[in-house]
Amino acid sequence: VDNLIIGELINTSRQAINTAVRNRDSAFIRELALKQAEAGADYIDINCGTYVNNEVEIMEWLVGEVQSVISVPLCIDSPDPNVLKAGLRMCRNGQPMVNSISAERDRYKGVLPLILEYEAKVVALCMDDTGMPQTAQDRLRVANRLVISITAFGIPIGDIYLDPLVKPISTSDLAGMEVLESIRLIKREFPEVNFACGLSNISFGLPNRKTLNRVFMIQATVVGMDSYILDPLDQEMMGAFFAAQALLGKDEYCSNYLAAYRSGVYSK
Amino acid sequence: VDNLIIGELINTSRQAINTAVRNRDSAFIRELALKQAEAGADYIDINCGTYVNNEVEIMEWLVGEVQSVISVPLCIDSPDPNVLKAGLRMCRNGQPMVNSISAERDRYKGVLPLILEYEAKVVALCMDDTGMPQTAQDRLRVANRLVISITAFGIPIGDIYLDPLVKPISTSDLAGMEVLESIRLIKREFPEVNFACGLSNISFGLPNRKTLNRVFMIQATVVGMDSYILDPLDQEMMGAFFAAQALLGKDEYCSNYLAAYRSGVYSK
Repeated sequence: VDNLIIGELINTSRQAINTAVRNRDSAFIRELALKQAEAGADYIDINCGTYVNNEVEIMEWLVGEVQSVISVPLCIDSPDPNVLKAGLRMCRNGQPMVNSISAERDRYKGVLPLILEYEAKVVALCMDDTGMPQTAQDRLRVANRLVISITAFGIPIGDIYLDPLVKPISTSDLAGMEVLESIRLIKREFPEVNFACGLSNISFGLPNRKTLNRVFMIQATVVGMDSYILDPLDQEMMGAFFAAQALLGKDEYCSNYLAAYRSGVYSK
Repeated sequence: VDNLIIGELINTSRQAINTAVRNRDSAFIRELALKQAEAGADYIDINCGTYVNNEVEIMEWLVGEVQSVISVPLCIDSPDPNVLKAGLRMCRNGQPMVNSISAERDRYKGVLPLILEYEAKVVALCMDDTGMPQTAQDRLRVANRLVISITAFGIPIGDIYLDPLVKPISTSDLAGMEVLESIRLIKREFPEVNFACGLSNISFGLPNRKTLNRVFMIQATVVGMDSYILDPLDQEMMGAFFAAQALLGKDEYCSNYLAAYRSGVYSK
């Protein structure tokens, strides 16, 4: 099982990124890519989904800018196969990642060929045409279909990163438990599959969201989550990540924890 | 299952407390008790084990001072049955707690009668005369003996708070996993027993101990820990506690989380 940190900051739904993209501010984008890589991101996510009319063009520009300064691979993030293809075609920094496929018929049909063509890792959302999953059993059922069908095409199970889909605890007390239970159940069925949840939905509508997101990251890691779409410049999140890994016995002699501490990846 | 926070600050191994005790500084001790209760402590631990020659006298003084200002019950903390008895005799704030019994023959024989006499809750260390437990199976074996023998005397299983005994990850990579695995195993055997670990040993010898302690608290809660011997004035620890409870579906409508946030129990 890999243990990936996917830097989430280059996303045009963030105001500062949107402004930088609108002004084609190369320096800003490059620096943000570089900073994430330096902070330990194994992949850099690129999402320009807010540009509905010229998403392909913006994706190409962003991929070019990012690859001009860093050598870590990219995670091309869009629901649109044409945008994914435009990004994937340009990827030169090792095995790319696609964010994301799902079990929705059209999305599955559109995205699967790209994963095969570019031998990409893939984030797979546990969702089908019936909509957002309700229970842990729903998620297990969809994960089953996704893992079995994707691997049937020859993609290694270790290249799949499941996202059980997180809903806010502010609307359902059990939203967190459902996700933790999903990971447990799916992990029992497929020990080699990876998990990369978009975590921040969990805290929607509540104060102090960063604490909730961080605590939920730690909880999900206990039950088997191993990859993280997050802000690698968030020192408290990164501190929690390195501490969690060391405490779970995944960091021999706590050497990554100590190295992160010394290098100032996290401050307290 | 209860969900107790046991405030750990009144412990003479802390320099400030030691000074206050030496000077019989009532105001200092009272304020520390009051602050912990206000911050949400359900029990106030009292430990004056550094006073080897007059531990009984100091325990009596501390219990009197603390009970003069708060109404939450006390956790009388000593390995010495005479000191425990001196403290327990004075307890007036509801069901007291004893910290701690173990499966060591002499300690067991000395402490058990006190639990029966004062109908106290009890922290039970998973340790016997063979010394510190090594594996999760060791801890399960000792926990078995403790739970079966203590309940055989008529003490409700819900009054037992097991401490699996935490060792530093700096000396063994698997020290954290062993404790988590112990809690899982024991919880499967005895769903009604409680867990209250002394957590801070986990981070011994490493920098940034508070982060490690906090992350380990969150991890242990996922697998079944429900009671906490901690510093209730540590806002980040308390924030993590309330967040963890809400995320695990143990806080209807997130109302405790929101109340703690509003009251300033934690700041970020």
